[in-house]
Formats: sequence, C-alpha cells, structure tokens
Amino acid sequence: MNRFGERFTITTFGESHGKAIGCVLDGVPAGLLIDEDYIQSELDRRKPGQNEFATARKEADCVEILSGVFEGLSTGTPIMMVIYNTDQKSGDYSNVKDIFRPGHADFTYFHKYGLRDYRGGGRSSARETAARVAGGAVAKLMLSQLGITFQSGISAIHGIEAQSLDFTYPQNSPIYALDASVEEAQKAAILEAKNSHDSVGGVCTVKISGLPIGLGEGLYYKLDAVLAEAMMGINAVKAVEIGEGIRSGELLASQNNDAITPKGFKTNHAGGILGGMSNGDDVLVRVHFKPTPSIFIDQESVNTENESVNVSLKGRHDPCVAVRGSVVAESMAALVCADMVLLNMGSTMNGIKGYYL
Amino acid sequence: MNRFGERFTITTFGESHGKAIGCVLDGVPAGLLIDEDYIQSELDRRKPGQNEFATARKEADCVEILSGVFEGLSTGTPIMMVIYNTDQKSGDYSNVKDIFRPGHADFTYFHKYGLRDYRGGGRSSARETAARVAGGAVAKLMLSQLGITFQSGISAIHGIEAQSLDFTYPQNSPIYALDASVEEAQKAAILEAKNSHDSVGGVCTVKISGLPIGLGEGLYYKLDAVLAEAMMGINAVKAVEIGEGIRSGELLASQNNDAITPKGFKTNHAGGILGGMSNGDDVLVRVHFKPTPSIFIDQESVNTENESVNVSLKGRHDPCVAVRGSVVAESMAALVCADMVLLNMGSTMNGIKGYYL
Amino acid sequence: MNRFGERFTITTFGESHGKAIGCVLDGVPAGLLIDEDYIQSELDRRKPGQNEFATARKEADCVEILSGVFEGLSTGTPIMMVIYNTDQKSGDYSNVKDIFRPGHADFTYFHKYGLRDYRGGGRSSARETAARVAGGAVAKLMLSQLGITFQSGISAIHGIEAQSLDFTYPQNSPIYALDASVEEAQKAAILEAKNSHDSVGGVCTVKISGLPIGLGEGLYYKLDAVLAEAMMGINAVKAVEIGEGIRSGELLASQNNDAITPKGFKTNHAGGILGGMSNGDDVLVRVHFKPTPSIFIDQESVNTENESVNVSLKGRHDPCVAVRGSVVAESMAALVCADMVLLNMGSTMNGIKGYYL
Amino acid sequence: MNRFGERFTITTFGESHGKAIGCVLDGVPAGLLIDEDYIQSELDRRKPGQNEFATARKEADCVEILSGVFEGLSTGTPIMMVIYNTDQKSGDYSNVKDIFRPGHADFTYFHKYGLRDYRGGGRSSARETAARVAGGAVAKLMLSQLGITFQSGISAIHGIEAQSLDFTYPQNSPIYALDASVEEAQKAAILEAKNSHDSVGGVCTVKISGLPIGLGEGLYYKLDAVLAEAMMGINAVKAVEIGEGIRSGELLASQNNDAITPKGFKTNHAGGILGGMSNGDDVLVRVHFKPTPSIFIDQESVNTENESVNVSLKGRHDPCVAVRGSVVAESMAALVCADMVLLNMGSTMNGIKGYYL
Repeated sequence: MNRFGERFTITTFGESHGKAIGCVLDGVPAGLLIDEDYIQSELDRRKPGQNEFATARKEADCVEILSGVFEGLSTGTPIMMVIYNTDQKSGDYSNVKDIFRPGHADFTYFHKYGLRDYRGGGRSSARETAARVAGGAVAKLMLSQLGITFQSGISAIHGIEAQSLDFTYPQNSPIYALDASVEEAQKAAILEAKNSHDSVGGVCTVKISGLPIGLGEGLYYKLDAVLAEAMMGINAVKAVEIGEGIRSGELLASQNNDAITPKGFKTNHAGGILGGMSNGDDVLVRVHFKPTPSIFIDQESVNTENESVNVSLKGRHDPCVAVRGSVVAESMAALVCADMVLLNMGSTMNGIKGYYL
Repeated sequence: MNRFGERFTITTFGESHGKAIGCVLDGVPAGLLIDEDYIQSELDRRKPGQNEFATARKEADCVEILSGVFEGLSTGTPIMMVIYNTDQKSGDYSNVKDIFRPGHADFTYFHKYGLRDYRGGGRSSARETAARVAGGAVAKLMLSQLGITFQSGISAIHGIEAQSLDFTYPQNSPIYALDASVEEAQKAAILEAKNSHDSVGGVCTVKISGLPIGLGEGLYYKLDAVLAEAMMGINAVKAVEIGEGIRSGELLASQNNDAITPKGFKTNHAGGILGGMSNGDDVLVRVHFKPTPSIFIDQESVNTENESVNVSLKGRHDPCVAVRGSVVAESMAALVCADMVLLNMGSTMNGIKGYYL
Repeated sequence: MNRFGERFTITTFGESHGKAIGCVLDGVPAGLLIDEDYIQSELDRRKPGQNEFATARKEADCVEILSGVFEGLSTGTPIMMVIYNTDQKSGDYSNVKDIFRPGHADFTYFHKYGLRDYRGGGRSSARETAARVAGGAVAKLMLSQLGITFQSGISAIHGIEAQSLDFTYPQNSPIYALDASVEEAQKAAILEAKNSHDSVGGVCTVKISGLPIGLGEGLYYKLDAVLAEAMMGINAVKAVEIGEGIRSGELLASQNNDAITPKGFKTNHAGGILGGMSNGDDVLVRVHFKPTPSIFIDQESVNTENESVNVSLKGRHDPCVAVRGSVVAESMAALVCADMVLLNMGSTMNGIKGYYL
Repeated sequence: MNRFGERFTITTFGESHGKAIGCVLDGVPAGLLIDEDYIQSELDRRKPGQNEFATARKEADCVEILSGVFEGLSTGTPIMMVIYNTDQKSGDYSNVKDIFRPGHADFTYFHKYGLRDYRGGGRSSARETAARVAGGAVAKLMLSQLGITFQSGISAIHGIEAQSLDFTYPQNSPIYALDASVEEAQKAAILEAKNSHDSVGGVCTVKISGLPIGLGEGLYYKLDAVLAEAMMGINAVKAVEIGEGIRSGELLASQNNDAITPKGFKTNHAGGILGGMSNGDDVLVRVHFKPTPSIFIDQESVNTENESVNVSLKGRHDPCVAVRGSVVAESMAALVCADMVLLNMGSTMNGIKGYYL
C-alpha cells in the first residue's frame, strides 16, 4: 500500500531520518529521454532550507538513478531513484520518543504497529514527498511529449485569497504565490505565525492543460476521484475541490452548467472533467493544507503509557506546509495523468522520445 | 475499472435504461447473517419517486440475491445482487440521441468510446448508485458486528447551512435534513429551483463512529485518501472535506491541533484521521454536490456533428441530487471502511455472525 | 479474489446449485459486435449432458446479457452475463452434507469458512467454468479482429498419448481428440473407468496463433506465468507445460534453443514465448487434469466431527473432466491474451468492429 | 508489472550490468526481527561463482537495507534492499549489441520496447532473482514464526531422476542434490555439457511444510495457481507440477484420491492443495528448467536488421540454471505463502517477533 497508480506506478520507500528515501517507477514507456537535470530541478523546487518561509533543514536532495535507464533513455523497465538523507538531526527527537505529538501520525502509527520510528515522524514525515516529486518529474517528461503541462501555486494563506491566478508568477515568488497583489499579505501571515512559534494553513491550486478528451476509466477510476485520492493523501491535506468545487453546492444548474459550442465549452465550472473523464478543458484542482502540526508552543498530550504530558517541540519545521506542498500536489497531478494516459495508450507509448518540456 | 476496494470489493454493472443494474461483492467474510430486509430498507432510502423533492421516476428497486448466500448466511464466496429496471421511459431520450447535454457525461463518453447508450445517460447515470447502496448495506451488516456505525444527512442546500448537526433527524425529513431549524428554508430552495425548471446544489455530511484506531494502509491507501476517492467518484460531487476541511487552511496550528488527554482527544478538528489512519474519534466527511445538470430550461450545446443545437430536455430528474446522494455517500463510506477492516483482519473475520445493527 | 485479469477482467459469481452463475466482464473495448449466438455456441461446447463421455446433468446453459451492450455493440461498460441453473438435483447431496468427499474442496472450504454450501460442491464446483467460457467467448470476439485465434483438444487420456496434433479434428470428436489414431483407445479408457464407477485423468493442449510479438509485461506479469496461473486455477489441473515443457529439463541447450532466421524461428521448443513475452510463434500449452474425484466406489473419509466415515457418492459426474476442461482451458487462454493485448493497446482498441471469427 | 503479491508484495528493480539490483518489500508486518545475517546467508546460497557447476561471475551479492527497519525491527513500512553490482564485464556483450541470442529475451524485448540494454540481458537476466531471494528471506523470517518452513533441491538433471527425496541433503551438495545416489551422475551430466560448451536442463522440487489449512483465496487467487505463476515466471522455467502433477493425468481417481482419516490424509497425491487451498499437508512443487540458452557453440540467428548472423557467445554462464534456480524457486514459494498468510491474517500479524528459523 505504498504504491500509487495502476499502469504508471510509483512505489516509495524511506523515512525522514533513515539512510535514504526514494521510489521505483514501473510502467514508464521505453525510449523516453530521461533528463536528470530536469528531475533535479523539480526536486529543487520542493527542497527545504531555501528561505525564511520554509524549514531550516538543509537537504541537498540529490537524486541518483540506479536502474531502468540505458544510454540516457528509459528501457521500459523499473526506474529506481534514490535520495540519500544527509542533514538528519535525530537527536532533536529524543525527547518525543515516547510522546504523541498533537496533529501528527505518532498516535495512530504507534497503535497500529506497536512501535514507531520516532525520528522526525519516520515514514509519516512529509520528507517522503521528495520521492513523489522525482516520480512526478518523469511523468511530466512523458506527458510533455503529448502537450500535457502542469502548473501550480499558492492561492490562499490563512484565508488571504488570491483575487486572480497567474500561473507564471509562482516561479518568482518565494511562497509560490499566484497573485502578486496579495503576496506580501500572505508572506506576512506566514512570518507572523512563525514568529509566534505557530504555523498557518493554506491552499494551492493545480492547473493541468492539454489533456486529451476521455481520460478516466469506468465508474471507479474516474479522473476526478483519483485526483482527489492523490491530493487528500498528501501530508496535511484536508480538502480537495475540482473546478467550481464547494461553490457548485451553492449554485443553480443554470449557473453551473457549461454551455457547449462548436469551439468548445463557454465556461469551465466543471474544472475540465465531466462524468469522471477529462473534457479537453483545463483541469483545476484546489488543495487545502492544514497548518504544520509541529509548533513550538506548549501543547497537551499523552505518552505511550497514556499519561498526561506537556509537549514542547524542538526541530526545524515549515511555518506553512502548503508552500512546498504545492509542488507535491503538482507532482501528484502528473502521476495521476501519466497513469490515465498509459491506461489509454498502453505500450503504444513505447518509442516516445523527448524533448519539449 | 468498475470495481471499488481491495479486499471487500464491489463490482457494479448496468445502465439506466438497460435490463438491470447490480453488483458482485467479493470478500464478504463467511458466516455473516445476510438480512435481505435490511438491504432492501437501505435501497428504499435512496429510491426515487418518493416525494416532491426527488425525481418522479418510480422504481421499486427490488434487490434479488443470486449467489453467495446459503441458508441465510454468507459463504465467503461472491454475493451477486441484481435490481431489474422497471420504469424506463427511454422514449424521453430519443431527442437527445445525437446531442451532448451540458453538465453530463455525454460529451466525454462519446469521445472516449465512439458511441454511447444515450438512454438516460446509460452507464453514467446516477441510477448505478443503487448498486452501491446494496453493497454498502452488506458492508454495514458486517461492520455493525464490530460496533462501527454510519449516519448521514444534508448539511446545506443552495448555501443554506445547518447550524448544528443532529444525525437522528434526517430519518424524519423528506430531504434528510440534519438541522430542523433550516429544513424549511432548504426545502423552499429546492422547490423554488424545481418550479423554475432549474435545480440546485447541496452538501451532505457523513459521520462514521466506532472505528478502531489504525485503519488506513501505508502512504497510498490512507483512510482519508480513499474516502476522498470514494466520495469524489459519486455522480455530481465536486469537493470533499475531512474534519475541519477547507477551514483548516485558514487556521493556525495552535487552533487546529487536537490536544490529547488520557481520555482521548479534546477536540476533533482532524475529523478522526491522523497520518491517514483512523484515530478512534468520529470520522466526519463533507461532500459537495453540484446541481443536477438536467434542467428544463433551454441550453446551448452541440451535436455529434459538432453543430450548434438548442437543448430542451424532457424526462424526470431530481431537483437536488444531494438529497438522495447523501445515502450514496454514506454507503460509499461503509464500503471504504469494510475494505479497510478486511485489510486489517483478513479471514479472521470468517465466522462473524450478526445481529445488532 | 474472484476476479481474473488486470485490464480485460472477468469477475465470476455463482454456485453449482444456487440460482445462477455468471460473470461481469470489465474492460471490453467499445464498438465490438457482441455476437450472442457465438457466445452461446461456445457454451454449448462445454455444456454437460451431451454424450456418454460426460456427466448426465442436463443444463441448457443459456446465457443472457444484462448490461454493457447497446444496439448489438459493446459500449465500453461492464458486460454482465448470467446463466440460470435449471437441472439441480440438490437432494443428491443431502448424504454428504457433513462429509468431506476425498479429492474435493469440501475439507478446505469447511475449515476456511466454517460452513459450506455442500450442494454439488457449491462454489468450488466446475460448474462455475461455464462463466469463464462465456467470458472467453467475448475475448475471442475481440482478439479475432487482430487475427489471434485459439484451438484446443485432448492430447492424452490415461496415458494414451496423441502421436500428432490435428487441431481441426476435435470438433468432430465427442472427446475432442486431437489424434484420430488414438481416439478409440482414449474413448475406451474413459468408458472402462466409467463402467468401473471410477474416473480417469487426461491432458489437453491449447494452441494460440497470431499473437503479435511482445505480449507480456515486466518480470511479474509474464505471458507464460499468467497462462500457468490461469490453467492451474482450473478445477482438477495439476500441471502446466509451455512449449517443450517437462522435456526441456532433459535437453541440452544445443537441442532446445530455437535458431532464428530472417523468416522466423526454425523450431518452436520455446512454445512461442521468450523472456515471458510472445515471440510471434504459436503458443502451445499442455494442461494436465487429474481424474474427477467424484466416483461411485466406496471411499474412506471423515465428517465435520472428524469421525471416520465411509463415503458412497450419488450424483452425475464426468468420467474424465479433461474433455470438457479443454474448452475451459482454451477460454482461459483467450482471457489471458485479451488482457495482455489491452495492457498493450489500452483504449486505442475502442472502435474495433467485427467480424471474421 | 514488476511487482509480485497482493498484500506481502515485492517490487524489484535493476539490470544485470546496471549499478544495482534490489527490491522494495511492502506489507511486512511491524515488530519482526530482521536478521540481516540470515538474509545474507540466503543470498549466499544463490550467489554465483562458488564452484565449477555455476557461472564464474563473482558477485559478493552483499545486501544493504535502506529503509523500513528501526532498531532491528520491521516498522510496517516498506523495506528497501539494494545489492550493488560489482563484477560486470559489459565488454563481453559488445559483440551481441545488435544480435538476438537464441533462447534469450533479446528478440522479444527489442520488438516490444524498440531498444534494449544488451549488457548481459539487462533486465531479463536471471541476476534479478537475487532480489527475489532477499525478499524471500524476509518472507521466511515472518513465516517461521508460524511454523511454516521451506526446503528445496534438485530432483533431476538431464533426465537423471532422484529415486527418493532427502531435503536435508542439498545443503551438503554443490548441486543441491536431493538424492545422494544419483548426485554423481547428475554432476557428471552438468560437467559434460559444460565441457562441450553446452548446457543442460534440470528439475527442482520445493517442499512447504507447516501451512495452516485454508490458504488460497477464491477461484482466481488459488494457492496452486499463484505458485504456478510464481514458478513459471522464473527465468528458464517451462513446466510446473503440483503433487502428483503430470502423473495425475494418467491415474484413476481410485488411485489418485487421498483418503481422509481422523489423523489426516492417508496419502498426498494432491500435493497439499485441494480446491486451490492448502489442506494442511506438505505442499510439493516440481519446477522444470530448460538448459541455459547461453552456450559457446555457434548458433544461427539474426540481427536487429533481420539479417542472418552467426552467434558466438562469450561471457560466463551457468552450465545448469536449475541448480541455483532451486533457491529462487524456494524463495518464490516463500513469497507466495507470505502473501497468502497476510491475506488471511492482515494487520493482526503486527507484533510478531522472532526468532526460531
């Protein structure tokens, strides 16, 4: 159950403070130019320690490919990518060895497994998402050959909402903001939380362009359902919307239906999906992240003996997990679409070449 | 891809105006008392034609079990349930044979498959969800033996929000309202839309109680992720929230974290799930439905030749699909939990008996 | 676990003496002409009660399609086929209600599930294989469009081996013999066993022609491995060989390797499979069936209380299950190949038409 | 499709002459003592270069665990094991870069993928089976806690059959012989083939003891079917038998049925499996390997331009792949049983400790 996808699959491994994290990609078609620089550049977008809006943990996040690529091309066999952990400070966690940190998976992992790797959350740490980004990068390499592209950014922080979405702006913003007009207010909200030893929630939006019509399979592998699964499965995510999303529950059909013309849909309330399949329009997904549960304010909890304890955390944490989470959400969108495309095209994808990402 | 679940699986079949719909349940443990009256009573909750708030299509929705049950008990082999269609009026659809109804799957199905069963949406019709309810009923029969229960109801219609949730109230409300204080306003919103030949969106909330700690598997079969997939896969659903949901993106961690005491969690912002696993608290899921796309107001569309057409629909449709959809959402929650429980308990469930639902 | 296949999947249901057996096919591409007469003709090949070499149980085995077909064409949605049981004589089994018949699944099913449907073996009966034949028929309809064909017949009975294989002969032989020169001896062996109230084992050979090169996926979904799984999973099968099979363990590589020429392979020791993938040559599979365990000679066993009992069976049984089993083996081969083809071609198969079977 | 198993799964990666091979095990219960020395000792049994009966390629086959183990115990999260390749001599293969070696996967891989890693067969090399042995070792660690054990050895070489099977003997035999009385003849057959620049086929037998009754799921995940899949999927395997195997096709039921007594089965023609489920007796599987296709005798083939060529191989190869293959077959049996056990016991296995292998 550490695998995602049916035909283009990613299996991840590794813990926050173990030797390494990584993934095995199975199903990548043969003949695809595997651009390691591009993969690394994607990891760099998610990399911690880059500015004051992210955790201070410094990880180079250098990815190494151990299999599945020969003379620069994918061979159709599993691509294994590994990222060694280098900046663990496991000592930071010795004081929470027997304590369940509020808002974390400590409590549930301990009860399920009877033991847990307490160092930085072990497997439940968002550090694992680096492997998803590596996998997503390969998915994007494949999909770019079909003209399918992915963009993402921050639409809201602590309730401060973007008024319009400019998907070219995030690359220039340290918080990947989609709207320059609210960026400073969003930054301020993050820093205010950080300075109060607290953290803050946020929302990202992912945009998928260029999908062919008809991606999505049957009634239980719908494109929107699988996107929802992919997004809700990201650490700290608590809500997912497609297209008009929660607002569609407030509308009349005469407002919400998208009229169709010979040139395409007049509006895109549907968010690019009808009947669980892509309709050719842009797919828009909104992903809501709770505030990072690791804060430096005293909290009430229990230990493994179920005794009351006061939790006082150390360590290095993101004051707003949504920021780097947006890159993960974009990567998961790429993994979902790569899977859906392969379900449709199968081995006819072998021989796809590269390169116009 | 018409199967849901890994160990307690449901495979559905059938179209809106075909001979029958139904499902095969695989993985039901042996020795479970299969109460057909209870299964039928669940179908009756979803059944159309019961009052002015639902479609006028009259379907008895009588379920018949063709396999997997011997002398009243499950045998551990596949349980096949069939529901024959009786009140099709396929003639209603002859005028949309070559037309894509806005907001429907007509457009995507036609482009994916090259043909489509145009009668009432064929496979993409919400009629298929009757099979999910039948499957969900068996899931509930199993889970009730472990003290796991499910409730649901309408929390909002057209933006009219419940102020408090009383899960005992829906059984007495024709719109399954969770808050008596707004029920009349919600009813009025539905009827107003109906009288305007329009339809309206809404929101349901599902509550799962009694889950053991630790349901949810690894990082890609998390309980919340699979619930999100299950809910987003229901016809007309456009957003899913767990616990605090979208509000968690607006909060500080000091507000959103649930403190832990020796007697349990002090609050339940998490909605009963931490790290993708049940934490023993109630699971709360909010599901947002768009308005039924079938309306009797003229709409702009194209035909299969991509020529502009004016769509004027006939037929019988729900003025608010969220109402009956809440029963489907509750059933999907039961299917998800049955699957998660079996992943944990496997064949040790054989011999489970019945009956205290 | 009552589903077979990854992309062209069959889920079966039903018991020997229940109301019905049947299957749901998921993944059949859209636009395929579904010839019900052909499907019925395939069922007729497996049908019991046709001559002295098979069980006397008379089942019409009439198949009815309840979903997935519209105006004669597949729609890309699940095809559900049901076969009602008509000639059950469940009374024949009242005396074995609490007894484990030697060589049957009674013992294991009872211990696994804690109860069992004892009527004719319930789910474990070979009657379920009628559903496989129905599913295999649809697979063949699809594959014939690609020029892929299937043949089968009896190569050995009770050690009496065919000297040469003529795949056109079985349609004229009541025991589906592949070699006219040993047919009479094989028939005699069956009747001699039958007259002694005993039964006899046999071997069938399945030949698959016209496969493209490269079917088979990765190292754990190899064509030969999945064929082996499919065949070994048929009731009473105890061994499976591909190509040279057991003889390959006795040869030198210089004898066993197939030389390659610009016109193809010089020999076919490989049985059409190299590295787990089809190599374009005929695939040859030998399937070994044990004798039908139901015999009318007294046998030693125990009852559900683990007390010694003498088993004296009634009922109607095949004196050689390999004969009708050969049709099942051929059907399973078709299901395997349909799955492998879809894994390769995906939705690009939609629009495939018919008809040159 | 490079994953095996449903609940205890192994995903392998790597090529013969790439940087590394390895696997990710998913589903291993938490709390299991992971004895790395034991895992290494299993790899050592399969390791090449140990004597004149195996390839001269010297690989240390040192396994390193990168995740899933904390303080010596499994944590319930994915266990990643890597084995670096150290003794590649890729230059040996430059002359077959564009040539299809007879009996190998070169031909099919090239046609499927459009390119191939020609160095030592790349992914299709039996070198990958080291990863299976590592995975199988962990499976055995788990199963030994339930008293389930595995043994294997060579029953035949080049038609020289063991007269009796002594499963304690192989550990002392360089060819893992099961019968001391034919060991010398079997050795001689191997060396004779080797000295003639040829290779020879063989048969191994795997014995599984201590299985509980009832392993095997439904009609399409039967224990025997999955064993057949697992074995046929091993490089060079062409036939698989369970219990009486091919001989069961020659017997009468009165000879083949196993009588049942209050103390158990009187005989074991069934090979420990009835109705696709374990019956509590020893499971016996015979696995037939073709001769290693790499030989040093000139062979006829074609190149990637489909021109006739003469193939003259270099490199280092096993004169009888069945010998080391027996360890792989035993490992696959362990993986199958671990999967079946977990399907039955699920997370109730967490907390299993160690150690009495």
